[in-house]
Amino acid sequence: MHFEHAGIATEDAQELAELYSDLFGLAVAHEEEFDGMRVVFLECGDGYFELLEPFEDGTIAQYLEANGSGIHHLALATEDIEAALETAREHDVSLIDEEPRPGAWGHSVAFLHPKDTGGILLELVEH
Amino acid sequence: MHFEHAGIATEDAQELAELYSDLFGLAVAHEEEFDGMRVVFLECGDGYFELLEPFEDGTIAQYLEANGSGIHHLALATEDIEAALETAREHDVSLIDEEPRPGAWGHSVAFLHPKDTGGILLELVEH
Repeated sequence: MHFEHAGIATEDAQELAELYSDLFGLAVAHEEEFDGMRVVFLECGDGYFELLEPFEDGTIAQYLEANGSGIHHLALATEDIEAALETAREHDVSLIDEEPRPGAWGHSVAFLHPKDTGGILLELVEH
Repeated sequence: MHFEHAGIATEDAQELAELYSDLFGLAVAHEEEFDGMRVVFLECGDGYFELLEPFEDGTIAQYLEANGSGIHHLALATEDIEAALETAREHDVSLIDEEPRPGAWGHSVAFLHPKDTGGILLELVEH
């Protein structure tokens, strides 16, 4: 697997995208509204920074309220998300998503529970 | 710039490296002792997961005590770290390192303050 994106919770995705463009030259690769959030992907080599700005209540809105803006999760790209979930099950890793579900940008995604992955909320992404 | 690594604070870098090898097939690219820490870089496409296990007091040990293991920072690769710091100064971004300093793996690094970068502790890395 390889790095797919770092998910970043923010109260203003457009403002943060402009700042990261100015500071680091990161360009917008894709943006959409998904699951009650404005989602902006910034190109970052082979992977992306995924800026997540909620406009409805949900896990990211709750994260922002508790922690303020910051790094929410890391995502790895896999060519076979079902097999990756099966491997996680074999290692007794708790799954937030027992089955893949539709994610942003039309991808298939599933999250692993941070309590079994070194404190990191890890997302598997199949393109 | 492009993604260079995600810095992960952990109490056991070897155990986490083995887990990420088992779960995700991430291989160890480099390991060393640096600045009072065991540092393990896992290959992750174009970039790395940098596992940071402190064996002395310091910022990562303090982070672990306050937060437990988790994502500590994100790093971007630049070909000109001095110019990147100058750009950050022009945008009134607070710098943790006013000048580049030696980082892990022999790289030149500098950190930007999260209060001016959307809550993300961002490291610039020049190879």
